[in-house]
This record gives sequence, C-alpha cells and structure tokens, in this order.
Amino acid sequence: MSMSLIECLAATGELAEAFSDQRVLEAMLEFECALARAGARVGVIPAPAADAIAAAARTGDFDIATLAARAQRAGTPGLPLAAMLAERVRVCAPAYEVYVHWGATSQDTADTAMMLLLRRCREILAADQEQLERALARLSDEHAATVMLGRTLLQPAPPVTFGLKAAGWRASIRRCWARLLEAFEEARVLQFGGASGTLAALGDRGIAVSEALAEDLGLRCPEAPWHAHRDRVAALAAALGVYTGALGKMALDISLLAQAEVAEVSEPGGAGRGGSSTMPHKRNPIASTLAVAAARRAPGLVAGLLACMLQEHERAAGGWQAEWSTLAALVQSAGLALASMAEAAEGLQVHPGNMRRNLDATRGAVFAERAFLHMAPVLGREAARALLDHVCARLDSEGGTLAEALASATEVAMPGDLDSPDAYLGSAENFRRRLLSPQED
Amino acid sequence: MSMSLIECLAATGELAEAFSDQRVLEAMLEFECALARAGARVGVIPAPAADAIAAAARTGDFDIATLAARAQRAGTPGLPLAAMLAERVRVCAPAYEVYVHWGATSQDTADTAMMLLLRRCREILAADQEQLERALARLSDEHAATVMLGRTLLQPAPPVTFGLKAAGWRASIRRCWARLLEAFEEARVLQFGGASGTLAALGDRGIAVSEALAEDLGLRCPEAPWHAHRDRVAALAAALGVYTGALGKMALDISLLAQAEVAEVSEPGGAGRGGSSTMPHKRNPIASTLAVAAARRAPGLVAGLLACMLQEHERAAGGWQAEWSTLAALVQSAGLALASMAEAAEGLQVHPGNMRRNLDATRGAVFAERAFLHMAPVLGREAARALLDHVCARLDSEGGTLAEALASATEVAMPGDLDSPDAYLGSAENFRRRLLSPQED
Amino acid sequence: MSMSLIECLAATGELAEAFSDQRVLEAMLEFECALARAGARVGVIPAPAADAIAAAARTGDFDIATLAARAQRAGTPGLPLAAMLAERVRVCAPAYEVYVHWGATSQDTADTAMMLLLRRCREILAADQEQLERALARLSDEHAATVMLGRTLLQPAPPVTFGLKAAGWRASIRRCWARLLEAFEEARVLQFGGASGTLAALGDRGIAVSEALAEDLGLRCPEAPWHAHRDRVAALAAALGVYTGALGKMALDISLLAQAEVAEVSEPGGAGRGGSSTMPHKRNPIASTLAVAAARRAPGLVAGLLACMLQEHERAAGGWQAEWSTLAALVQSAGLALASMAEAAEGLQVHPGNMRRNLDATRGAVFAERAFLHMAPVLGREAARALLDHVCARLDSEGGTLAEALASATEVAMPGDLDSPDAYLGSAENFRRRLLSPQED
Amino acid sequence: MSMSLIECLAATGELAEAFSDQRVLEAMLEFECALARAGARVGVIPAPAADAIAAAARTGDFDIATLAARAQRAGTPGLPLAAMLAERVRVCAPAYEVYVHWGATSQDTADTAMMLLLRRCREILAADQEQLERALARLSDEHAATVMLGRTLLQPAPPVTFGLKAAGWRASIRRCWARLLEAFEEARVLQFGGASGTLAALGDRGIAVSEALAEDLGLRCPEAPWHAHRDRVAALAAALGVYTGALGKMALDISLLAQAEVAEVSEPGGAGRGGSSTMPHKRNPIASTLAVAAARRAPGLVAGLLACMLQEHERAAGGWQAEWSTLAALVQSAGLALASMAEAAEGLQVHPGNMRRNLDATRGAVFAERAFLHMAPVLGREAARALLDHVCARLDSEGGTLAEALASATEVAMPGDLDSPDAYLGSAENFRRRLLSPQED
Repeated sequence: MSMSLIECLAATGELAEAFSDQRVLEAMLEFECALARAGARVGVIPAPAADAIAAAARTGDFDIATLAARAQRAGTPGLPLAAMLAERVRVCAPAYEVYVHWGATSQDTADTAMMLLLRRCREILAADQEQLERALARLSDEHAATVMLGRTLLQPAPPVTFGLKAAGWRASIRRCWARLLEAFEEARVLQFGGASGTLAALGDRGIAVSEALAEDLGLRCPEAPWHAHRDRVAALAAALGVYTGALGKMALDISLLAQAEVAEVSEPGGAGRGGSSTMPHKRNPIASTLAVAAARRAPGLVAGLLACMLQEHERAAGGWQAEWSTLAALVQSAGLALASMAEAAEGLQVHPGNMRRNLDATRGAVFAERAFLHMAPVLGREAARALLDHVCARLDSEGGTLAEALASATEVAMPGDLDSPDAYLGSAENFRRRLLSPQED
Repeated sequence: MSMSLIECLAATGELAEAFSDQRVLEAMLEFECALARAGARVGVIPAPAADAIAAAARTGDFDIATLAARAQRAGTPGLPLAAMLAERVRVCAPAYEVYVHWGATSQDTADTAMMLLLRRCREILAADQEQLERALARLSDEHAATVMLGRTLLQPAPPVTFGLKAAGWRASIRRCWARLLEAFEEARVLQFGGASGTLAALGDRGIAVSEALAEDLGLRCPEAPWHAHRDRVAALAAALGVYTGALGKMALDISLLAQAEVAEVSEPGGAGRGGSSTMPHKRNPIASTLAVAAARRAPGLVAGLLACMLQEHERAAGGWQAEWSTLAALVQSAGLALASMAEAAEGLQVHPGNMRRNLDATRGAVFAERAFLHMAPVLGREAARALLDHVCARLDSEGGTLAEALASATEVAMPGDLDSPDAYLGSAENFRRRLLSPQED
Repeated sequence: MSMSLIECLAATGELAEAFSDQRVLEAMLEFECALARAGARVGVIPAPAADAIAAAARTGDFDIATLAARAQRAGTPGLPLAAMLAERVRVCAPAYEVYVHWGATSQDTADTAMMLLLRRCREILAADQEQLERALARLSDEHAATVMLGRTLLQPAPPVTFGLKAAGWRASIRRCWARLLEAFEEARVLQFGGASGTLAALGDRGIAVSEALAEDLGLRCPEAPWHAHRDRVAALAAALGVYTGALGKMALDISLLAQAEVAEVSEPGGAGRGGSSTMPHKRNPIASTLAVAAARRAPGLVAGLLACMLQEHERAAGGWQAEWSTLAALVQSAGLALASMAEAAEGLQVHPGNMRRNLDATRGAVFAERAFLHMAPVLGREAARALLDHVCARLDSEGGTLAEALASATEVAMPGDLDSPDAYLGSAENFRRRLLSPQED
Repeated sequence: MSMSLIECLAATGELAEAFSDQRVLEAMLEFECALARAGARVGVIPAPAADAIAAAARTGDFDIATLAARAQRAGTPGLPLAAMLAERVRVCAPAYEVYVHWGATSQDTADTAMMLLLRRCREILAADQEQLERALARLSDEHAATVMLGRTLLQPAPPVTFGLKAAGWRASIRRCWARLLEAFEEARVLQFGGASGTLAALGDRGIAVSEALAEDLGLRCPEAPWHAHRDRVAALAAALGVYTGALGKMALDISLLAQAEVAEVSEPGGAGRGGSSTMPHKRNPIASTLAVAAARRAPGLVAGLLACMLQEHERAAGGWQAEWSTLAALVQSAGLALASMAEAAEGLQVHPGNMRRNLDATRGAVFAERAFLHMAPVLGREAARALLDHVCARLDSEGGTLAEALASATEVAMPGDLDSPDAYLGSAENFRRRLLSPQED
C-alpha cells in the first residue's frame, strides 16, 4: 500500500494505491501497447512492431524519478514516457523504434491513462457503495418504528423515525451514485487525436485505429478527440463532488447524534478507532470525522476542475495539466468518505432508549404544532398561537407535559394521544418505504 | 426589466427579471394558493378557504421591503409571507385565516418557490440554446472546408478546419445542455414536508395532498421531502457550472481568434457593442468577454452550493439559506454566457483569408510531423528528428518553405503535397460530421 | 432600504443599500466629477468644464435601466455613463462636453467607483465590529469562572470556561478584522490609467492629475495603474473570506450550544426572531444560522475572485467584469455574518447551570486524563490505560463517579479534587487574559 | 527526490520532497522531542526522559505504511506516532515511556509539524522569489524604452513599453510576496494545548512549557492554543492563493506574447523543455503552462481551506483533518508557479523587432485616441468620433497610415509625430520607475 503520510487523512489505502507510480506508469504503457496493437491490426504499422513495443513495455525497469522529472520539464508525462519506451525498443528491435506512439500526441497518453485509472477507481467505489446501501437498508428496516426527535435548525421538532432518517441518507446517496455511475460511464472514453486532434498522421485510417484502440482498452470511442473539450471530466468531477456531499451529510448527522448529550448513536469503534491520545474515556466518531473532512475538501476541488474547462483552441496551455492531481485527490476524497460511511453504517449502534429520552425531555413541546391545528380553527390563529407560546414557555419551570398544561389552560378538546410520538408520525413510514424503493413509485 | 447596475455584467435582463421581487413573491404565493387548493381537494381544509386564500393572494399589495426585512429576522421568507397572507385573509374571510400554509413549513414555501423560478429559467435558456446550436451548425457546415492553423499550447500545429472547431464547440455545449436539462428535470420537484418532513399535520393524508399539490404546480412529487437532502439542487448547480464552462471555452477561443495579430474571426459588433470610450479604432469582443467572465465566476458559485450539502438532521441551520442567492447568481451567469455566445455565433464574421495567411506564415513548419512520418522509418527516430529540428530552426532566416528546405536537405522522398493543408487534415471532416450528429454514431 | 427578496438571507439592509443603483451611480459620477476638477486644477482641461460637468452630474435624471442595459452591451458601465453625462453637458455647456472622462478609460470609472463603494462598506462593518468586540469582552469577563465541558470531535473533554471560549472567538475575529482593515486600506487606491495604463492622453501631466484626483477622492495614489494587476482586490476578497470564516466558527459553536440537549446558551430572540411557522415552542438560533450560511458562501466567492487574477495584458477580456457582483456578494455576506454575531453576542443568554449539569453527566469521565497522569508513572502506560478504559466503560452502568470507581479499582493515590472542574482548568484563565489583551504578551 | 508521477505537474521536486514521508515523520518527531526537552527544562518530567525519548526518535525504524494506516484509523497521525515512539522508549528506558507526548494532544503534534514543514517551504520559495525579482528588474531596465502594443480586451491599444510590463509583473508579485511573508510569519506559531486547549495536564506550568517549547522549535508562542481557530492557517492559504494568481497573470501574458502570430517573447527552452512528441517545429511555453495550471488549481484549494474554518468547539470533527493535504498541494502549486516564472524570467527572449512590427501593423490606428483629443475640442465629441470611425474602418483597405488618412480627411492640425509610439507613452517610464522602487514614492 502506497499511502503517504501527508495523504493519510485524505485517501483510502486502495485509492492511494490506485494512483501510485506503478499504476500510473502501467496505465500509460497500456495505452502505448494497445495503440501499437491497434495500428498493427489496421495496418498502419508493421505487425512485429506491436510485439516489440509490448516486450519493451514489460521490461519494468522504468526509472520513475527520471520520468517524473522529465515530465515536469516537458509539461507532460506522455512525451518522456514515449521516449523511454522507444529507447527500450531500440535496444532489441531498432527497426520498430519509430512506431512507438505512432500517430498519437502526448496528451492522448495522459488523458487515456487517466480514464483507465478512473475506471479502476469506479470498481473500488462500487464495492463499498454496495456495502453501504445494504447496511443502510438494514438499519432502516430494523428501525422503521424507532421514534426519535426530528431536529430542525438544531432544535427539537415533531418526531421522525430512525428508519426514515437512514432511508433518507440511503436514497440521497443512491441518487448521487446513479449520477456518478453515469458520469463515470460518460468519461470512460478514449482520447486519441494526434497533434491537432485530426489524426492527420494516420491519413484516412484514423477512425479505424481509434475504434480498434478503444475496443482493445475497453473504452468507448468518442465522436472526436476532446483534448480541449473537458466537459466529461468536469461532469465527472462534479458528480464526485455531489456524491461526497451526500456522504458528508450522513456523516454530519452521525457525529451530531453521537454527541454525549444526545447519545442516540455510536460509531462502531474497533481497533485503533475513536481513541484519544489523552482521554481514555473517549469514543470519537472518526469515520464521520474523515467523511466530513472529505466533504469539506471536495467543493474546492470541483471548483478547480471546473476552472480548467477554459482551454484554448485544440490543446491548452495550462488546462488538463491542472486536472491530473486534482482528479486523483477528488476521487480519493470521495472514496474515503464512502469507505468511512460504509464502515459506520455496518456497525452503527443505535440507542432507541436515548432517542425516547430526548423526545420525552421536551415534555411534549414538540407536539405544540399538533395542538395548534386543533385550537386554531376554534380560537383563531393568533389566540391559539399566544396560548401555546404561554404554555410552552412555562413547561420547564412548572413541570408536567404539554397535554397536562393544555388540559388546564383551554377548553378546546385535544386528542387523547396528543403527545404520543407514534400518533404523530404522519407519512413517515410511507415516505421511508418510498425512499427505499424509489422505482416502485 | 429589473437589472441592477451591480449585476449588469452578471445577468441578462430576462434572468434578472426572473428573480425580481415580483417573480419571487408570485412564486411563493403560487405555492400557498396551490397548497390551499390541494388541501381543499383532498378535504383537509374547507373548500371556501382555498378561494379566500387565492383572493387574498391576488390583492397585490404586499410590501416587499417589509417582507424582506421580516424574512431576514425570521431566517426565511416563508414565515413572514404566510403571516402577511393570513392577515389579508382575516380581513375578508376571518374563518379561513387559519388554513393559510396548512401543514407546511416555511422551507416548503422557499424551496418550492425556487423550483418554480428555476423552471422559468430553463425556458429562457432553452430559447437561446436553440439559437446557439443552429448558428453553430450553420457555421460548421459553411466552413467545413475552411482550413486554419491548429493551435496547441498556443503554438501552431497541423491544420484543422473552422468547421471542425465550430462542431467541437457545439458538441460539447450540447452534451452539457443535455446534462443540464436532465438536472433541471430532476430538480423540478415539489418540496412539501411540514415541520419535520413527515407531514404529520396532515395525518394519513400527507401523500394525497402532496400529489395533488405537485400536479397543480406542474412539479414532480418526490419519494419524500428533501429539506436536508440537497443533492438535486447541488447536481443542478454542478450542471450549470459545467455548462457555463463549455460556453466559456468557446468564448475564450473566439477572443483569441479575434486578436488583431490573428484576425481570424470578428464578433458581430452592432449598436453599443465592442466600442471603447477612448479608442475609436477598437472592436472589442464583448460577448466573449462577458461569457468568459461568467465562466470565471461559476466554479466558485458551484463550490458554494456543494458546500451547502452538509445540512443537519431534518432541516439545517445555515444550509438552504445560503443557496438562494447563489443559485440565482449561477443560473444568471450561465444565461449571460449563453446569450452572449448565441449572439456571437449568430453574427460571427469568419476570415478564411487570414486563416490561410496565418497558416502560410509558418512556411510549412506545421507539416514537420508529416515529414517525420516519412523520414523516421528510413532514417531512424533520432536522425529524422535532428534533421527536422535543424531545418525548422532555419526556415525563418533562410526563407522558403519546409518542402523546399527538405528537398535539398534529405533524399528521403516526400509527398508532393507535403505542405498542402487540405492534404493533411486526417479525419477532420469525419470527426466534424460525427460531432454534429452524435446520435448516428 | 433596497434589499431584494432574493438576497434577503445574504445581505444586511445597509449593505444591500451600499450597492444600490443610486450608490453605484453616485460613485461613478463622483469619479467623473473629481476627474474633471483634477484636470482643471492641473490645467489639462478648462476650469469651467469641471463646473459644467459637476452641474450635469447633479441633474439626477439618469435612467438606470437604460444605463444598465447599455453597460451590458458595452461590457462596462463606465462607457455609457460617460456618454450619458456628456449628453447632459452638451445641453447646457456644449463647449465642455468633450472634457467629460478626459484621459480616462471606462475601467478607471468602474474600478474607482468600486473602491469608493468598498470604503463605505468598511465603515458599516467597523461599527458592528466594535459592538461585537465589546459584547464578547463583556461575556468573557462575566464568565471567566463559568466552567463547562470542553468538547473535541463533538465528544466531552476536560473542562474549559465559557470566558475562555468567548475570548477565543473574540481574539480570532479581531485578528481577522485587523487583516481585513489592512486589506481595505491597501485597496483604498485610485484606478486611473487611461487606455493602456500609461495616461498617454495627458502627456507629461498624468501623474499630477492622478495625485490631484486621488486627493480629491480621499484615495491613495498607487505607483501605477493596476487594471490587470488585481492582487489588492484579491487580497481584500481573501481577507473578507477569512473574516467570515472566523465569524462562522463562532456561529457554529453557538448553534451547537443552543441545541435543546445541550442548552448552554440561547440566542437573544426578540421580535420576529427565531420563531417557526409551525412550531410555537421553538427558539431557532437564526443569527447563527445566517452567519453560518454566509460562511458557507464565502469560500466559493473568494475562489471566484482569485480565479479573476489571470487577466491578460493591459486590461483583460473577462477579468474585472466578473469581480463586481462577486465582491458585493462577498462583503454583504461578511457583513451579515458580522451583524448577526454582534446581535447574538450582545444578547446571548448563558446558562451556567446547564453547563455544570452537562459536565456532571459525564460522571467525571472527562478527568480520566488527569487520573492517567497520576497512574501511568506508577503502573506504566498500558496498564494505566487499560484500567481506565475498564473503569470508564462501566461508569454509566454501575453509577457513581470516576473518583469513586478508581478508589476501589486501584491503590494509586488520586488527588482529592480529582473530578472538580475548577481544579483541572490548567492555564484557561491565563490564556483567556492573553487572548483579550494580545498586545501585552 | 520523492515526486510522484501523479503530482509531477503540480509540485517542484523540492516541494514534493518537503512533504515526503521522511520530512513529515521528522517534523512530528521534532515536536515530540522538543516537548520532552521543554518538559524536562521546566521540570514537569524527569530530565533523563527527554534523552530517552530523543534517543528513541533517532532509531529511524518507523514503519511508515503502518503509521499511515493507523493514522487513518485514528483520524490523526499524532496518536499512533506517540504510541510507536513510546514503544521504542519502553525497550530501552521503560521508566520513561509514560513521558512521551506528556501533556499534549495528537492535534498538537500534527499542527506543529505542519508549521515546521511550512517554515521549510518558505525558505524554498524565498530563493526562487529573489531570483525572479532580480530577473524581472533586469528585464524591465533593459527594455525601459522597448515599445510594444498595449493590449486591452485582447485588442490593440496605445503603446506601452516592455519595461513597464515587466515592472508591473514584478511589483504585483512583490506585493503578494510581502503579504505572503507576513502570513508565513503569523503562522509560524506553536500549537500546544493538550486535550481541551487548557494544558490542564501541566497544572500551572502550561505556559512555561509552551514558551520553552516554542523557543526550542523556533516558533512563536501564541496567546493561546488555536486548535479550532484556524484563521492563521486560512490567511496563509489565502496569501498563497493570491500570490499564485499574480504569478499566473505573468505566465498568461508570456504565453500570449509567445503565440506565433505575436512572437514578441520566447520562453528560454533548454533540455527537455518545450518540445513536442509529434511536432519538431514547436517551442511550447511550458514554464508558463505549468504556472497557469497552478493558478487554475489554487483558488479551489483556497476555498477548501476557508471552508475548514468552521470548526466545532475546542477541536473539530472534520476540520484540520481536511487541511493537511490541501495545504501541501497549495504551497506546492505556488512553488511550481514561482519556479517556472523564475526560470522564464531568467531566460526570457524578448523580440523588440516583432513588437515594433505588430505596432506598425495597426497603421497608426492605436493613435486614434490621440487624434481624437486634438479633434474633439474643435469638432465636438460626436463629429470627431464619427470622422475617426470612418477613417479607421478604411485604413486596412485603403493602405497608408492614420496620420496620412487624417491629413486628407480633416483640416484640424495634428501633431507631426502623431503615430510615433515614443511620442505617446505618457507616464509609462515614470510608472515603471515607481513600480520598481515603490518605497521611494
């Protein structure tokens, strides 16, 4: 695992590895080899050239430090990589050296490599996403009838169920995942255009080579090269940002519910999780912390990638070069938020007793709305409101519940179950079911 | 038209008007009236109440300054609006006053009103988008064979056609528009959840009222309220940002092509357009300037809206409140970029003669790639490259063209049309057609 | 007051007014009149021209809608304003019409007007800042000895004092305000450069006119025009963003402390503040909500202004045009956050009893660190930690306090006041004093 | 050098190295050792403990992969580092193991380590900044009299000098550097607060240990810990963003001037710089490309760091954790932009002949403003403008210069040197000198 210390709170090990030097190098070599195969297949380069290039790529002795340094000099990794690969071919099969990178431009290598790397990221995410969805569905079903305070503007509101809450997280994250999958699929696209995006070097065989190359790599063949048209990349970035935001909302809710004063859920804990260097008593919501941190970073990273869309002419001076590390950071943030929430959901401890305690602690004040609906038609809007304000303001000092206080304060008849949470859940269960099975509605 | 001076470079008149006080007020009243009608239809409030509320809403004497000030005190415009509407009902039909806003929370009003306002924005954009697409298709067809320099990293590269360039702009903008339409459609959704998002005040009739209300307003009825699940809003914002970026890329290209030293296109000009207060000779690319400015603003606005996704519990303290003005600014930026590019495309003057002049001024150096492809298999990669470097470096000082210089520098046979742009366009026309008709591929 | 509905949660009335059409128009006219006076003083235009221009500017019958529309056509408000002003001069003093805008370019008008508008904003902010600082100092002093839970990662930690908390808010906001004042002062600078920033139209009198003009307007005269060098504007934007963030941190803390389950502070409330349309019992932390919302918007707005720094050559195509409305939105966000926190601090209700209750509810677990410090040297790090983990995990189920549990679990002697908050405040009071009077340290 | 492939276009080798695992580890160990020394000096831990801890830190066999993985589990690198260090102490000096990390919290380690890393970054930047300033001063002096087109909205405008242009870049970058130095200095501050920021574990010796620790590390001792008050970090981030923007402006200008059609400057080139994989003729402005790319990334990274300011209570759940990698990416972007511009300025080739050619190609149209100033007082604003519009519009088709065309079109006397660039530079040289020596004005 190649996670560095500076990124240890910003990427999972798997997603750090997905952008390791080895993976990036492999992706670029994969492009070069597939390009040679496609060229050979269509007949624009000699067939043995493809074999020679593939053999050279397998040697594995590419000096990464040199490659990175030359890439910076050149403003692109594609150029020095092609040169290093050609050097290796020259040693064994000098006649085929010239066919390395035939017809391509260095941005073709860089962009296609990124698309291959992102495809791998999608698979990593997909596994965690499935786990998260399953865990949330289970939590929602188990707690379909677990009442808890609704909270609006961080203040008590009429009750909801924890099942509804979990279903809400799940539905939003699923919507975002569906959008993200679509964006991944849209961005699973070959970049191959040559110097000016016309594939001029290939004469009238450009599209044939493109199609063969795309097929070989398992990418889609776009209508045309997109060197300076970055909307697919930007849309993917945006989808990653929105997705991370939805995960961050769930994380924020968990961290708030885990406050000691609220104590309605606890993160799973486990080895090395949630401890404190100084405070033995603590159970920190680390998974939520990491997911919230990821969601704080994502919007700026998205902005950075949107700002890269203004790319000049056929290929830009300062456009895609800014994307590479930003895209990696963004998908890593999304992945860390996801893995954290999958873990949290899987092992979340829910405390229905505390939920009930917090509800009861309001002495029924959260049912004032319900009382209002009965009183207002009789007393009028303002009188009903004034009476309720008066009663609610005294609940804490005078003790008793809203139902009791109202019984002595007004003659308007109240329902017998005025402050029973179960009696004032409205469409909560119905909404919960619709959220869990949106396709059925 | 209500465009203010401070926003005169950041919104079209139509889109400034779309968020004018009058429009915002109307949208909120539309929600309140439709809510009453839906309540009456389902039978949760008396039928005459709906009429009384509609009548009160029509009075038109809402004091905006007061409403805005109270909205700030309350942290939401929905609350004081409901109060002001109820006051008006009380005057004529006191018995029905209590049924104003029945079952709703103030965020229901604000969110649904925003969705109604955005729907109107979509229509405004759609008209300009159609004009832009048509103009770009025409430009692309007219200039299918107009050769010009490709430019990469702002340096000359092998030729492209202006038809391909225009098709590239159009295809990217169309892809973004398709995503944007999808996002608009996803966000065309009712917000109606009451205090905690359970519609508890409506007992078991919540979903029936929701569906009647959504139908009345022409919005979709979601699985459940989404007070604190903002992914649809964020996804719309993101789509607006990506769309504006694609428009900005086109604008950037135009402003660069319109440089006096390049002079390959001119913006249409026209009354009040492009002049200078001090320089009578100038023809400034104002449409592109405004579109680029919009594209500079958009990424930050998107980041702002993504940052709003972390909303606590059932309704947040500081989430959607930050969205309102940001969403308006974002859709206005997109609309200004669009209107500017529609105008620019409609009247763009293309100068094929200058395109040819700039191409010729390279003395064929941009065909060095083509020469390399012929020389390298014969001479080897490095020798071919060295010879071309030598020849290209002397072209300017020695005069003559690349073809002429190569004829005396090497015995490798070159094609007779080595520096004919038409002979080195590769798949340009094919790509152009695929871009214009992506569905056919 | 000109606050519109769409901005009612994003600006104070005063700061909405500060960018009203009237104020923007006045600022631009102020530039034009002062320019004429400076030109007359230095002798580059006839003295009566300045009077004629001043008289024309006073007529007050500028049609804003026309001006805004023409400004959009021209890509700048300066150009149509100069034209409209010249028309008015022509009517009364045709000979002097040509001296309107003499030597200036339209961006001179726009930029200088913005600097004048921002100067006014600074004054508005300064008043609220003073109120906020005073209120926080008072709160801090009053609660120097009010103990409360420290909270880290939203979990209980060893105690702090509310006085320290308030002092921390104040010190951070004051540091940010000091930086902001510096940035305002740096940005209080004339823009006057003419067409290319050389003041060529004024021959060798350019700097003399600049200095007279700057003096007249009460602005600083920079080394040179800065049409495309926007670092002062960007630095001001950044300072506004950082300042808003510090206010947002205070607001976030308040909204968390105001949670019903925590109940350690309440916002002041007051007419129209904190109520709910549906829930009579609620006391929403609206001031904090608005400030948090502002702090959510600010980072993206800052990003937008930083992105504007890439301005081409002498004056850019799409740079400053993107700044105008963004700067206004940013300073308005800052001002709303500030006014909200000033109000909240002024009337904040602090509940020391609840603070103590929440502390006590931990049964002394937050003093586990203290116990560890005594046990570890005796038992070793791991044994001490294991014992404390064991004891803390059983506190809730077994009842009693940490001190009691430890007394029976270990023979290591503990201080008698082990779980007395006052005995474990460390340097809290010392830090508080240093924060309130940073200059003395 | 530890630059990875994914960051090879986003960091210099030196700044990649500055955040390498080794450097990050060393910085954290430096904190732990200095803490022990300070504790021993003040007498809160035994003196030999400090030596034992220092000896253990020197062993150098920390397994980074394990540390990074545990850091992610713990949500902080400080906690597992302290544990690993303690393990090492236990082996040799078991009695002192408990004194590792005495009184500190894990965020103290992380924050202080970051401040130490940033201090090193400042030194790296300072060297390049000095080189850049020197090179720009030289360029400006050498080209004090080199006239070139002014360009506004990318269109020709009255002339400037290249000396003025270079002085403008230098002055803006210097202003930004001065702000950045101030921000670095402000952020050169110890973080040491213990669990709740009160240093409770140290009783009344907290401030004494803090001061000793700060002195030992060469950091400033703040008024109080700042775990959740991130304004200094945010202000540093903002200053880095503004600085990168100023560098980006210079890079953008260079890339535009280097366009083949403009050809007024060339980047230095050199080994591996500016070549193309496919186009032997190219000289790409790679330094500018990398700097522009950095400037595109910076605003979003700043937004990310500003968004982190909303940190809860004493230490946040998701605040500073998001800062680490973002700060590194931001300072690396700034450093890459700087190094690129230092190299570009050092070796920039300026082509005065082409500058003059481009100026002359306007046939004097850029002096229309000058002609207007002579004509308008005689003919009136509109007549003068109309005549000039007419004349300018025909310049290209009719040949000749503006001076010649005006001589036959009007009887208003024009200066003999009407279209001599040297005669219409206004205050250019004066401004240039003021920009180079701002302190003297």
